Order: sequence, then structure tokens, then C-alpha cells
Amino acid sequence: MNQNTTTFALKGDIVYAVDKDHIVTQKDGYLVCEKGKSAGVFKELPAKYSGIKVVDHTGRLIVPGMTDLHVHAPQYTYRGIGMDLELLEWLNTHTFPEEVKYENLAYAAKAYSYFTYDLQRCFTTRAVVFATVHTDSTIELMDQLEASGMITYVGKVNMDRNSVCNLEEKDAETSLRNTVEWLEKIEGRYRNTSPIITPRFIPSCTDELMSGLGALAAKKQLRIQSHLSENPSEIQWVRELVPASTSYANAYEMFGAMGSPDRPTIMAHCVYSGPEEMAIMQKYGTFIAHCPESNMNLTSGIAPVRKFLDAGMKVGLGSDVAAGSSMDMLKTMLCTLQASKMYFRLVDNNAKALTFEEVFYLATKGGGAYFGKVGSFEKGYDFDAVVLDDSLMVSMREVTVRERVERAVYNDADCIIMDKYVAGTQIWKKQCV
Amino acid sequence: MNQNTTTFALKGDIVYAVDKDHIVTQKDGYLVCEKGKSAGVFKELPAKYSGIKVVDHTGRLIVPGMTDLHVHAPQYTYRGIGMDLELLEWLNTHTFPEEVKYENLAYAAKAYSYFTYDLQRCFTTRAVVFATVHTDSTIELMDQLEASGMITYVGKVNMDRNSVCNLEEKDAETSLRNTVEWLEKIEGRYRNTSPIITPRFIPSCTDELMSGLGALAAKKQLRIQSHLSENPSEIQWVRELVPASTSYANAYEMFGAMGSPDRPTIMAHCVYSGPEEMAIMQKYGTFIAHCPESNMNLTSGIAPVRKFLDAGMKVGLGSDVAAGSSMDMLKTMLCTLQASKMYFRLVDNNAKALTFEEVFYLATKGGGAYFGKVGSFEKGYDFDAVVLDDSLMVSMREVTVRERVERAVYNDADCIIMDKYVAGTQIWKKQCV
Repeated sequence: MNQNTTTFALKGDIVYAVDKDHIVTQKDGYLVCEKGKSAGVFKELPAKYSGIKVVDHTGRLIVPGMTDLHVHAPQYTYRGIGMDLELLEWLNTHTFPEEVKYENLAYAAKAYSYFTYDLQRCFTTRAVVFATVHTDSTIELMDQLEASGMITYVGKVNMDRNSVCNLEEKDAETSLRNTVEWLEKIEGRYRNTSPIITPRFIPSCTDELMSGLGALAAKKQLRIQSHLSENPSEIQWVRELVPASTSYANAYEMFGAMGSPDRPTIMAHCVYSGPEEMAIMQKYGTFIAHCPESNMNLTSGIAPVRKFLDAGMKVGLGSDVAAGSSMDMLKTMLCTLQASKMYFRLVDNNAKALTFEEVFYLATKGGGAYFGKVGSFEKGYDFDAVVLDDSLMVSMREVTVRERVERAVYNDADCIIMDKYVAGTQIWKKQCV
Repeated sequence: MNQNTTTFALKGDIVYAVDKDHIVTQKDGYLVCEKGKSAGVFKELPAKYSGIKVVDHTGRLIVPGMTDLHVHAPQYTYRGIGMDLELLEWLNTHTFPEEVKYENLAYAAKAYSYFTYDLQRCFTTRAVVFATVHTDSTIELMDQLEASGMITYVGKVNMDRNSVCNLEEKDAETSLRNTVEWLEKIEGRYRNTSPIITPRFIPSCTDELMSGLGALAAKKQLRIQSHLSENPSEIQWVRELVPASTSYANAYEMFGAMGSPDRPTIMAHCVYSGPEEMAIMQKYGTFIAHCPESNMNLTSGIAPVRKFLDAGMKVGLGSDVAAGSSMDMLKTMLCTLQASKMYFRLVDNNAKALTFEEVFYLATKGGGAYFGKVGSFEKGYDFDAVVLDDSLMVSMREVTVRERVERAVYNDADCIIMDKYVAGTQIWKKQCV
């Protein structure tokens, strides 16, 4: 897992987004890595690179590493279970009783090893992760993710009300103190793993805690992640809990917990975010983590992504495991397409369905922007790359590289990840049997 | 592929539906096969079976083979491509130009071998299949399916108007004559492969052809399959093509093409079937092939399955490849769940989302009923069984057999099919590397 300082190239069928409407492909081309960054994509290897190591993936797809803007690590091991429930009932029945177990460090270490291993072997190269309220097990998760070579933000969760099973912290003061201790313990510890302030959502955080976290984030110049407007019952509850707020987003804003454009907050879901919430998010430069599979599985609804894009808002995709069933970003992309088609058909005929190009962009460059120049192969972008064997899907005609990527998204189960790089370092390689 | 006349048992974690609200499980139990039929599920092997061969799948899931009520074999090799289009545009751009190639028998033989191979290694044990208008290549497909050991209905498609690329047959008379010739050529040829009369849909069939096919089906006591009320533009077109009809289903009825309860017709989609169409289908004992992934992918909409079930109608699931992207019935089940949740949330709050139990039933016993006593492990049911290794999905707690099946549906990519039987005959076994 040493940083790769050498210059090398991957040879294969290369594909990446330049903007939300354009996918660029290079069949049988070269993707060059210099000092962890893309030096560009070439049809022939330029003379200046003659003699560099070329990893031959001829016939395979080479796509940018993907960004999962919203995933709950402690929920991973019960994914796909109890999905007939809606959000608040599901949290009380499945989530909180599981998360309380992470007080036990040995339990957390084992469970997080399953999460980390599977994250390493999927399309994700960057992730923004919820842990639990527990400091030590959150550090354990961060240690494991650091060792994996992936680049992540990880949040110790804050909760001081309305959980079950004694999961919440005693009070706002305790929760804030725990958070400061956590930050002190990890200071200088990681190269690729950053802390992120993580109030679970308004129902789990008293006004005092939420204000304290907003102030702490500002003081330490840390980013914030949370949930916004996911489910009708949840939204109604927030209205009761913060009666002075004009919207759920405004409740965060009242407590100074919306971050700022230079340290943008991630808000997961935004299924029911109308004009007011959109304006608030634009003001603070918020990234929306669109989690369509979760939103379908928990019967939450469908977020109006077309409207977010038309308004020029920042959007990426989230698997939201375990309300989303898998960390496979291809599956998340497919759900994004399907959800936007159903939004157009069933909710608003003026909200054109997302194109494949747009969804590919969201999964790569859109979410990647949260990490900087990430999610594309344009020159200067971090060299995050995944090599994909799609040869199980036989065709009777010549299929373009663009078509093969679409086919892979619609048939994720038949795609095999062969090789994976983060910022120029190989972090996964399929072992041949 | 000889018929298995021996008595044997599979040992493992067994699961099946008895009705749409109840899944029965037997952890570490025995599923006994006698003369191709289930002799029941047992906690301990009864004394009368002592000494029979027991195939040890301890720790693996054993589920009933699934029925795919609607799949287009010639579309398989371009699945997952061009999915930003809606139905009629997609047919003209992708489907018809491909299907016309099946006039070439060598082409068809190769393409159908890909289809048949993949059908053999998925959860499906029974399928109802569209071929193309071409007689010889349809027979080629039937030969391949017969050799596979699966049990299927296959239809030579009828079309005498409105296709592109010269795909349609010359006129109604030609189409009918071709169909009779096809039936004569295959008479007595197969044990497991049955012909089914297959008018593509109203837009592809003149009134004369549709009437002729209805009469032919009645005369030969054959079943019929077609498409119904899939897409708003299609429905509008049918209204123009058959101005005397009161609904799309009524148009089929006018031409005597709705079959009868003793030889039930399959109608795929029924996305926009209201009370009149439901009444017509009930009168004729129609099976609805619910194809939710297709309906999302082509922006068609969501069929009101809850209403169909409440009315006591016959419903099964269809992958509808290539508008559906894969023949994996677990994926179809997941889309069924997600679609019904979105229908509840976005269309009709009185149409309760389908439960996991209901969807499991639809994929197994619901669709299986089209073939008789198929899709369950109750005594006397045909022994269609699939053995599933789900050990890639590690959990931190004891997971029940019921929970593991749900988890498999939500994580199809991590499930490995180990063994597959149709009517007591093993037709697939994973080769260990």
C-alpha cells in the first residue's frame, strides 16, 4: 500500500465523463499515471512515456473509481434484511439494536473487517462513511480503512435523544466531549482518512448538541454530514421537534450546522427538498448524496435529481447501506436511472429522466468533486481507476465502449473487477484461481 | 439429461411458499424427490427413505425453481443497451433491426446458444419465451431449450404490419400459413418444449391476423401470449388501430385472442390495466406477467400488482429481457418490491406495497401455476429446485433462513447457484475450479 511514485500506464478500453452530458471513450488506449495523477488518455503511448510499465488489460473496460457519498459501515452485515419496513420503524427494529453492539471493540473490529474487505473489492475508491457513536470502534474503522488504501471521510455519530437500546450518548455535553476526544486521539494518525462531524439527523440530536457540533465544525474547519428530508413521517417529526424552523434544512441552518462552501456539508436523500431547501443548500454549497435504492427500499420516495441538476447543485450518489442493499455503485447507478424514469412518469412529466451520461457523471465526477479533482481521467485528476472484465456478456455485434459501460450498469452481476487503483496505488487485484 | 426416476434427497436450508402470505422454512432439512416430484420436506429423513442418495448441501439455501413468464430470447445478446429510450422508439432502434437477423439460421443458432446457456445457469426452471417471426430459427431455439432440460413454452412471433427492416411477414395469410407449418414441423418433437401462439401485440398484427391466430389457437387447443397496456403511446396507438375497441384488452377479445381459462393466455405488463381490462382478464383466466424492471427501464410505469392480487387474479413475474436487463429472477423480485413501494408512495396510498412473502410467491408458486403444480416443495409439486451458496454474505448474528432469502434477493450479485433440478432431473451443477 505504498504510494506509487512510478509512472505507468493501463492499456484497455477507457471511459470517463468530462461533464454531465459527455462520456469520452478510447478503445484500446493508454491511461497514464504520473505521481498518483492521470497524465491523460492516449490512443498511442506518447514517445515521452516509452519504456514505462504498461499493465495490459486489453479488451477490458477501465473506468474511474467511484465515490460513495453516503454509507453506514456498521449496517453492512445486516444489509438486505427487514426491508418491508419504513425508515423510523426500520431504525428502531434493525439499526439501533445493531449499532449499540459497537461499544464492544472486538465486535466492531470483526464487523468492520467485513465492511472494509467488501468496500475494497467494489467500484468505490472514495467514500464518506457513518460509524456509530462509539469513539474507539470508530477509530478501529478508520484504522482499517487507512490500511485498505481507500480515501475516506469517517464520522463518529452524534446522538443524544430518541434512540432505543441506550444507543444515545448521555447528553449534549457528553456527546460533544466524546467528539473532541475522538478528534484528539486521531490527530495526525492518517494520510487518507479524515474525520467528519456527523450528527445523525435532527430527531437524534438536541438543539444544544446540534449547535455545539456546528460550532465545533467551524472552529476545527471540519466538514459535516447528515440526513435531510428522507421520509414523510421523519419530516413531520422534525417539524414538531424544531417548531421554529421553516423547513428541515432550515432547522440545520438555525443551529449553524450547514457548513460552508469551502467545507461543504453532505446531506443524504433530499427526497422531499423543495425550493426553500434547495436555496439553503445552494447557499452553503451542500453536496446532495442521492441514494435511490435506499429511497425505494424504505418506501421513502424519489428525490427530484433533475431539478437539482437544473439548478446547478452539487450531486453525487450514495449506496446508503444498509437501507441500500449493496455497496456496488453500478447497482446504485441503475437505481438512479430507474428512479428518475419513474419520477418523470409518475410524479412530474416536466422533470426529464436522467440520461445514462448524467448518471455515469454522478457516480464518478459528480461525487468525486467532494474529494477534489477526482472521478475522471482528465489530466491532473487523481488516478482512481477500476478495471472491469465484462466478457461474460457475449454479444452478436460490435458493441461500442459506451454501450459496454451501459450494459455493465444494467448487468452488474456479470461484471468482474480485475484491478483497482486509488491515487495511483493499486489496492485490489483479482486473484486468479 | 435423462429423466431421473430414482428417489433422492437434497439436504440443506429449505424454503418455499405455501401461499402468498406464508413462507415455510426448514433449516438443515431434507427435500425428497420421488419420480420427479417433491415427496415433501422433512426435519429428519423418514425411515421409509433410509438408504436413498442424499446430496449434502448443508448450510446452503434450497429454493424452488423460478418461472419467467415473459422473456424474448433474440433480444438477450443486446440486453442493457439503449435503455434511455421508450418502448416504441426502442423497438425500432434496437429490437426490430436485431430480430430480422434471425432469418439466418446460423446466426440464430449461435445467439440462442448464449441465451440458453445463461438461462440454464440462473434461477429459472420454467420460462415462456418469444422467439422471432422465423420458423426455422424458432425450431432451433426449441431444440436447444429441449436439450437444456428446462421446461418452456416458445412462440414463433406473428407480425404483419408496422415493423421496420422487413421484419414483418407479408400478410395475414402468410403469417398464419407459416404458423401452421411451424406447428406441423414440431409435432411430437419435444417432451419439455411446447409451442405457444404469439401475436407480438396489436400494433404488429392486422385484425385479420389476430382473428386467425385466435381461431388457430382454439382449434389446436394452444395457449396464447402477448403484450398488454405497457406504454401510454402504445395504448394510444392501439386505440387508433382498433377504434371499435373499448380497451386494449377488449381489442384482443374482439378478435377471439384472449384464450380461455383452461388454456390461459399470458399478457405481459398490464401497467395501465384498469377495471375493464381486469374484468376481461378475469373472465378468460389470464396470467399477468409482471415485468417491473422492464417497465422502469423503458419508462413505461408501474403495474398495480396489489390491485391484481386483491382481485384474485393470476400473476407471475417476467424478466422481459432485453427491456429487462437480466434473466436473474432475484433481480426481478427486487424490482417488484421496489416498484410496488413506489406505486404506494407516488401513485396510490391505498395500494399497500407488496410484502417480501408476496413477491417470493409470485416468482415461484404464482408464475409456476402456469405450468401446473410447480414452484413449491409441497408434496406432489414438480421437483424444480435451485441450490444457492450465500456464504459470501457474512453476518454478525444468527440469520434465519427467511432472512437469508430476503438478503439474497437484495444482493443477487453475491449469490452463487450450485445446483439446479427441473422435474427431478439435474440440469446444472457449478463446476468447482
